[in-house]
Amino acid sequence: MSASAPTPRTLDRGTEQRIRDGIGRQTLLTTLGISIAELAVGRVVLDLPYRTDLCQQNGFMHAGAITTLADSACGYAAASLIPEDRDVLTVEFKVNLLSPARGDRFRATGEVVRAGRTLTVCSADVTAWADDGDGNPETSLVRVALMQATMMAVTPPASARQATPLR
Amino acid sequence: MSASAPTPRTLDRGTEQRIRDGIGRQTLLTTLGISIAELAVGRVVLDLPYRTDLCQQNGFMHAGAITTLADSACGYAAASLIPEDRDVLTVEFKVNLLSPARGDRFRATGEVVRAGRTLTVCSADVTAWADDGDGNPETSLVRVALMQATMMAVTPPASARQATPLR
Amino acid sequence: MSASAPTPRTLDRGTEQRIRDGIGRQTLLTTLGISIAELAVGRVVLDLPYRTDLCQQNGFMHAGAITTLADSACGYAAASLIPEDRDVLTVEFKVNLLSPARGDRFRATGEVVRAGRTLTVCSADVTAWADDGDGNPETSLVRVALMQATMMAVTPPASARQATPLR
Amino acid sequence: MSASAPTPRTLDRGTEQRIRDGIGRQTLLTTLGISIAELAVGRVVLDLPYRTDLCQQNGFMHAGAITTLADSACGYAAASLIPEDRDVLTVEFKVNLLSPARGDRFRATGEVVRAGRTLTVCSADVTAWADDGDGNPETSLVRVALMQATMMAVTPPASARQATPLR
Repeated sequence: MSASAPTPRTLDRGTEQRIRDGIGRQTLLTTLGISIAELAVGRVVLDLPYRTDLCQQNGFMHAGAITTLADSACGYAAASLIPEDRDVLTVEFKVNLLSPARGDRFRATGEVVRAGRTLTVCSADVTAWADDGDGNPETSLVRVALMQATMMAVTPPASARQATPLR
Repeated sequence: MSASAPTPRTLDRGTEQRIRDGIGRQTLLTTLGISIAELAVGRVVLDLPYRTDLCQQNGFMHAGAITTLADSACGYAAASLIPEDRDVLTVEFKVNLLSPARGDRFRATGEVVRAGRTLTVCSADVTAWADDGDGNPETSLVRVALMQATMMAVTPPASARQATPLR
Repeated sequence: MSASAPTPRTLDRGTEQRIRDGIGRQTLLTTLGISIAELAVGRVVLDLPYRTDLCQQNGFMHAGAITTLADSACGYAAASLIPEDRDVLTVEFKVNLLSPARGDRFRATGEVVRAGRTLTVCSADVTAWADDGDGNPETSLVRVALMQATMMAVTPPASARQATPLR
Repeated sequence: MSASAPTPRTLDRGTEQRIRDGIGRQTLLTTLGISIAELAVGRVVLDLPYRTDLCQQNGFMHAGAITTLADSACGYAAASLIPEDRDVLTVEFKVNLLSPARGDRFRATGEVVRAGRTLTVCSADVTAWADDGDGNPETSLVRVALMQATMMAVTPPASARQATPLR
């Protein structure tokens, strides 16, 4: 989407820290091994290395893991543009799975398509990569998934802000 | 969808075994703790107990885990109606997240809306449950998610049939 | 969705009139020939008779006409549950086209899945019908489409309330 | 999507004629006033001028008209890449409505994201334009909608090929 756009603007330090903290508090992302590759204004890139315990029946990465990666990239792309006292929730998303998720690493690029006061529309592209010998992405192989998502800015529940157990 | 429909027909033993084997081969489902609650013709119910390592920032189950549950229920509902030598792939899905996924257990009911020779359209409903003291679902709390999905019947790759490593 | 639900509650007269007026102000609906079959709380049924000038290449009703019908049924189902001074906008929808739209008449049943203060999630089912000799729907033929939609309650623009031209 | 891509390749004359004929046979497109702005390999641009009889309640173009435009751009983008004896059907699409459709003209750019033998995934972007005094698009105003769609190549029914009435 942003191929012709100017280089994304760097996030201010406060917003960057807020996003890093937010990702750190999402325990599923740690469980799956999702990490940050790049953070910018309206654009977030996340990585998920291949793991044999996150697969579907043919040994490829499961659509559920790829979707979690794409949803997170969209959510934090939206979060990069909202005021710091608001939280982002996923309203809905739609994902097309374009090719079997075969590769050493999967990279989702989430971008804001339209930012509104309440709702932000995002898209994410997930690509498979082959790593070099040192575990760094070297060759982009194939586009794996395309997501279109709606995110909502909400005032976080008081209990969340107080960090009391919510369940 | 099937509220007014006749009781779902019981699966024949071969198809049931094939679905159980398929679920067993999806390592992500084991990693997340997804289990079978009910299998019928065109209808599959799967369970996912709450776990603190599968959450989003507020301590609720992450949309990615809920989506994986719903996608799997749709996929196996479709699989229950296709010939045994064919595999099911997710073409695409769209999910609305209706309420925070707060509860002891999450239950996805996947149903076939329309079965075609190549494509099968499914829907899934995910509900949160409170368990009784023995870890059995007791009270249905709230509807958590609604999914509409397209599945495709494919001839599995030879390598998959031979169970050789695929990556 | 509501097959097992209690009979939908009748709309109060003010809300019913508001919905009828709203449908009357949507010129595309008149252009296509969409009419009201049933209005209830959280449930709206709309009809679209077959017309040769609303078709795709094979002489079936075009997906665009079927989608407009389903979107409208969802939108007014949502409108039936919101305060009278607010307007409903479509945020997004996803539609699966299940069968060629062949028949004398197409009927969309839109229902509210979850009503929130800002966002309302709806689904709609579109069915083809054969009419009796007098132009009344007689036999339900086949399910044509399934929609899942997100609607938003907004305060209408002042200019809209003053009915001045908006373009 | 294609912003950084090489200039789209020109269609061969046979495919171009086949697409023009196909659009001509879709009576809804003529009824709404949709016309071709550009045809290329994997990329189709369609125009829809504003009309007061295609509006929603506030005098903006109705989401149903905008969606029909975007779906058609996706469908013909897919058609530009499939063999001439096959027809394209819409399996499903999802559309986010980004801004009120206010303007003199609406332009949908449909592009193929991934072409498969059976299924083709497309996206479409719809933008509003202000015309110059002579009815030509002059200024791009705002992005109105974003669509993600799945198209299917099918062998057309014999009756369609024989152009006999199908209903």
